[in-house]
Amino acid sequence: MTGRSIAIPVEEIRVAHARIEPYIHRTPILTSETLDAAFGSRIFFKCENFQKSGAFKVRGAFNALLSLSREDAARGIVTSSSGNQAAAVSLAARARGVSAYIAMPKIAVASKVAAVQRYGGNIVWVESNNRIPTSEEYDATALAIQEETGANPVHPYDDLRTIAGQATCALELLEEVPDIDYLLAPVGGGGLLSGTCSTAAALATGTKVVGCEPEKADDAWRSFQEGTIVPQTDPQTIADGLRTSLGEYTFPIIAANVSEIVTVSEDAILRSMRLIWETMKIVIEPSAAVPVAALLEKKISGHADRIGVILSGGNVDLDSLPDWPEL
Amino acid sequence: MTGRSIAIPVEEIRVAHARIEPYIHRTPILTSETLDAAFGSRIFFKCENFQKSGAFKVRGAFNALLSLSREDAARGIVTSSSGNQAAAVSLAARARGVSAYIAMPKIAVASKVAAVQRYGGNIVWVESNNRIPTSEEYDATALAIQEETGANPVHPYDDLRTIAGQATCALELLEEVPDIDYLLAPVGGGGLLSGTCSTAAALATGTKVVGCEPEKADDAWRSFQEGTIVPQTDPQTIADGLRTSLGEYTFPIIAANVSEIVTVSEDAILRSMRLIWETMKIVIEPSAAVPVAALLEKKISGHADRIGVILSGGNVDLDSLPDWPEL
Repeated sequence: MTGRSIAIPVEEIRVAHARIEPYIHRTPILTSETLDAAFGSRIFFKCENFQKSGAFKVRGAFNALLSLSREDAARGIVTSSSGNQAAAVSLAARARGVSAYIAMPKIAVASKVAAVQRYGGNIVWVESNNRIPTSEEYDATALAIQEETGANPVHPYDDLRTIAGQATCALELLEEVPDIDYLLAPVGGGGLLSGTCSTAAALATGTKVVGCEPEKADDAWRSFQEGTIVPQTDPQTIADGLRTSLGEYTFPIIAANVSEIVTVSEDAILRSMRLIWETMKIVIEPSAAVPVAALLEKKISGHADRIGVILSGGNVDLDSLPDWPEL
Repeated sequence: MTGRSIAIPVEEIRVAHARIEPYIHRTPILTSETLDAAFGSRIFFKCENFQKSGAFKVRGAFNALLSLSREDAARGIVTSSSGNQAAAVSLAARARGVSAYIAMPKIAVASKVAAVQRYGGNIVWVESNNRIPTSEEYDATALAIQEETGANPVHPYDDLRTIAGQATCALELLEEVPDIDYLLAPVGGGGLLSGTCSTAAALATGTKVVGCEPEKADDAWRSFQEGTIVPQTDPQTIADGLRTSLGEYTFPIIAANVSEIVTVSEDAILRSMRLIWETMKIVIEPSAAVPVAALLEKKISGHADRIGVILSGGNVDLDSLPDWPEL
């Protein structure tokens, strides 16, 4: 009982939803008879690949930005991201007519850089010697921007406004499909997962929330086992949205409310991505395939009649897809 | 006025729709603000890639099969196809509990052969020396099956029951979005296009129907110009659903009711496929990208505020995608 009290209050999640609703899509929940038969469960896919900017991240970005007073907002916002968060914050800032500053690594894929530029975001490059930047390198760049411009920092996941925004995804899912046994979400920095389990803790106490993570970026699994944040080092996974480490806000919420964290192989991520593309005819990105991979590899404890899966995004670099494994 | 009388009567299209409705999906009509801005028109995409078996073909297959008496149906049905028609007929036959015999070329892609087998269709290989079979080679194989089994022949496009079924796609689109200036459909054998223009001729006399075809399989364009069927020879297009020639039934309906036929380059087909995958996050096959390519290459005469586009299918062989061109 005490554990469950560490979560974003559902009232805040509802306020966030009302705040962002005019700016985001209410994404569809799709089902597939073929996949239901293959997995032996009824699966409800919440399709955030169809969300504005192509990923759930706009929920948190809009909530954070719309939480600011007009005076604060006028100074703009600053965030750090290699991908979806960058586009989401740029889009939200444009909608409110303020500046967005994005600390981005030079190794970010061209299509994601182009998306930020299309939405009018200002990119500041993070120096990281052609590696994936560490959290410290990202934070240092963001802090420098903040000091120079006065822009409001919005952390891509470790920020209560961000988490409350991401929690609205599960709110929509659980409103439309109330009786699900398991709710699966990918976990990187934990913004989506901590929001998801906050919503479920209030609205669906019978629903087990499962965090799904690549084996090659298994910091959440290790943190969950050890009861303390174990930072991610050198994450060599194709799931580019899940390479970050849990944060000071996201970890305790996850530790208190998530039933289990499971990890999946790179091969299963690619096979799951292929399965969804071919069967459902929708494009999902590798990070979004991770919960599907957990089903494919039968990593969830116990059986479930009804499973919710958050397909977190659909931003794929078609130029650098690896060879597809056999299904 | 005389021209318009050569079309499938709308009453038959409505009967077909009522007949097949319990067995097919009413596919969604999607829009994209990004693409509307890019093309300068409001575009309504009728998403038959989400149709059962992944393509519009089940509409005609179900209509043909459900038109048969119980006694006739019991002898099964036979069709010839390298792809979507094969899966569609197999699925329809399974739903009615009868046998499907499919004349398929040995060069058919593995995933399409697997789909037929998954749906329980019986494959009979067409001998064609590793070429794409000619219509005559397909027909000879289908006829041999028919003589041996007594199965009912259902032509993949040149059959009034098939055409009436395909016409239901435009019926759904025009019911939901009545005031469109142009309605674009791909054309191969002409089943979808002749059905589409039949529906428009009755329900949307102000809507211009445009047939869209690869330059490298331009028999419909040539037939339309010359006023007589010009058979397709050696069609080297990636749009594998559009390599066939117009038929005795489809050609006169198209000639009488279609405003124009336009042709598009292979590069534009691939760029359009990429554009739809990346922007809308949905998987469409090359044949379905052909009408989008007509917009991309500005092939339609005149301007249109509102355009309907039939995205005919989503069955792609992910193992043999070419390199993507730049957008």
